[in-house]
Amino acid sequence: MRLPHHLERLSVPEKLVQAMTYSLKAGGKRIRPALLLATIRSFEKPIESGLDVACAIEMIHTYSLIHDDLPAMDDDDIRRGKPTNHKIFGEALAILAGDALLTYSFELVAQIKNQDVTAEQKLLLIQEIAKAAGPEGMVGGQVADMEGENKSLTLEELIYIHHHKTGDLLTASIVAGAIIAGAAEDDIANLRMFAKELGLMFQIKDDILDVEGDPETIGKPIGSDDGNNKSTYPNLLGLEGAKKMLNEHMTQAKEYLYRVNMNHQLLLTLTNYVAERDH
Amino acid sequence: MRLPHHLERLSVPEKLVQAMTYSLKAGGKRIRPALLLATIRSFEKPIESGLDVACAIEMIHTYSLIHDDLPAMDDDDIRRGKPTNHKIFGEALAILAGDALLTYSFELVAQIKNQDVTAEQKLLLIQEIAKAAGPEGMVGGQVADMEGENKSLTLEELIYIHHHKTGDLLTASIVAGAIIAGAAEDDIANLRMFAKELGLMFQIKDDILDVEGDPETIGKPIGSDDGNNKSTYPNLLGLEGAKKMLNEHMTQAKEYLYRVNMNHQLLLTLTNYVAERDH
Repeated sequence: MRLPHHLERLSVPEKLVQAMTYSLKAGGKRIRPALLLATIRSFEKPIESGLDVACAIEMIHTYSLIHDDLPAMDDDDIRRGKPTNHKIFGEALAILAGDALLTYSFELVAQIKNQDVTAEQKLLLIQEIAKAAGPEGMVGGQVADMEGENKSLTLEELIYIHHHKTGDLLTASIVAGAIIAGAAEDDIANLRMFAKELGLMFQIKDDILDVEGDPETIGKPIGSDDGNNKSTYPNLLGLEGAKKMLNEHMTQAKEYLYRVNMNHQLLLTLTNYVAERDH
Repeated sequence: MRLPHHLERLSVPEKLVQAMTYSLKAGGKRIRPALLLATIRSFEKPIESGLDVACAIEMIHTYSLIHDDLPAMDDDDIRRGKPTNHKIFGEALAILAGDALLTYSFELVAQIKNQDVTAEQKLLLIQEIAKAAGPEGMVGGQVADMEGENKSLTLEELIYIHHHKTGDLLTASIVAGAIIAGAAEDDIANLRMFAKELGLMFQIKDDILDVEGDPETIGKPIGSDDGNNKSTYPNLLGLEGAKKMLNEHMTQAKEYLYRVNMNHQLLLTLTNYVAERDH
């Protein structure tokens, strides 16, 4: 993974670089970079052209986790089996490390050196990513999630939250790959629909794992969502109902995927992985 | 000011828009937008071409104030004579409103509709602004500032902090105006030096006002920096020494400015305003 490389080049206070790299290196599934690079590969283009943007999106995902874990937000001490950022570096530095990762991600996309990516494409990438991460996307979803805490949500409200809180950045990863690969507008539109389904699958599966997963494998206490009185798919639909919904969205996702003029194998494998993963 | 207009168009949770607009509307000197638009005007280009970027930079400035005021950071209850964002909306929403303003600012710059601004220029603007706001710029300066709290700094360390914490975004405002106006590279380089001097003047003047200003006019308690045991220019140089330093940097600023091939009047007026303002 190229993530730390970018940061070590920066001339910034050492503590800040440490706080930024700590969470970037803390592991995680790297599902967003994987989706972006897989999309490029599926159009039979070289994945090197997407590495900077993949890093940028992972930085945005990481910043969102750092801020979500803060005492004022979810107040989590453990993330991916390790102490959360503010437990190591303190709240102030955790807030700033998140701010720095978010800001730097846009610098990274704006300065891609790749000659195959035109200036217009870079601007499209920035728009796509900023919209997915900002008030209409991930941040908006997080606010809706907070507002829904400790009250029971309808299935529709839950889906709305997840589309924005986690779905939009997953979608942006796939759409960004398609933009970099120079995909046609129709293909981008179908991939966007595919990605929305995949994002929902991802969240339903997360909720299912929280009920029946192995705490050592998933890296957080089982039932921690339940303890917060959160609305989850298993809570709303029962465990079997949630699994059925997961399968329905997997079928739908694959239908959109097959409409895209690309080699489908990689994204099919990733789709199956999202449904079948054990952490 | 066009700020709220942009936000009201967004489809986002109402509370989030309220928290974002509260701080944007809370007043402030709008010095960054003023510098950007004044720079465009000084090249005799229409200022309309810079309005979106001016808004974006003011959003970034506002996000930085919201996060700086948080209990984990400076823990300020009052800003510009009004309760700070987290006092009204709570910490979680204040963090997210800051995140949203920062993210949306890049979307705004990437999607400028103005045909006079090329895609390459938009990318330059995003790079300039992201670098100024990110780990090598404003956020890095804030971390250095935190690390310097409660210990005495040398004048050099204090200048380093201010160059990044406040100077870089002021510089980006002026450089952004020059980029939008299509200025020559030499002119941009001299304006960058001018802006660095101006940014320093701005901070020295802030410190002076904190010692001798009228609390009702400046909107925060007099001596609040002093109470935090912060290193300031008056603390290091005495009040008269700080005033002398302010004048020296004003002279230097004007020297750089006169080298730029533009109408100097507006930026001269703004330079004098920074030195002479009473809040």
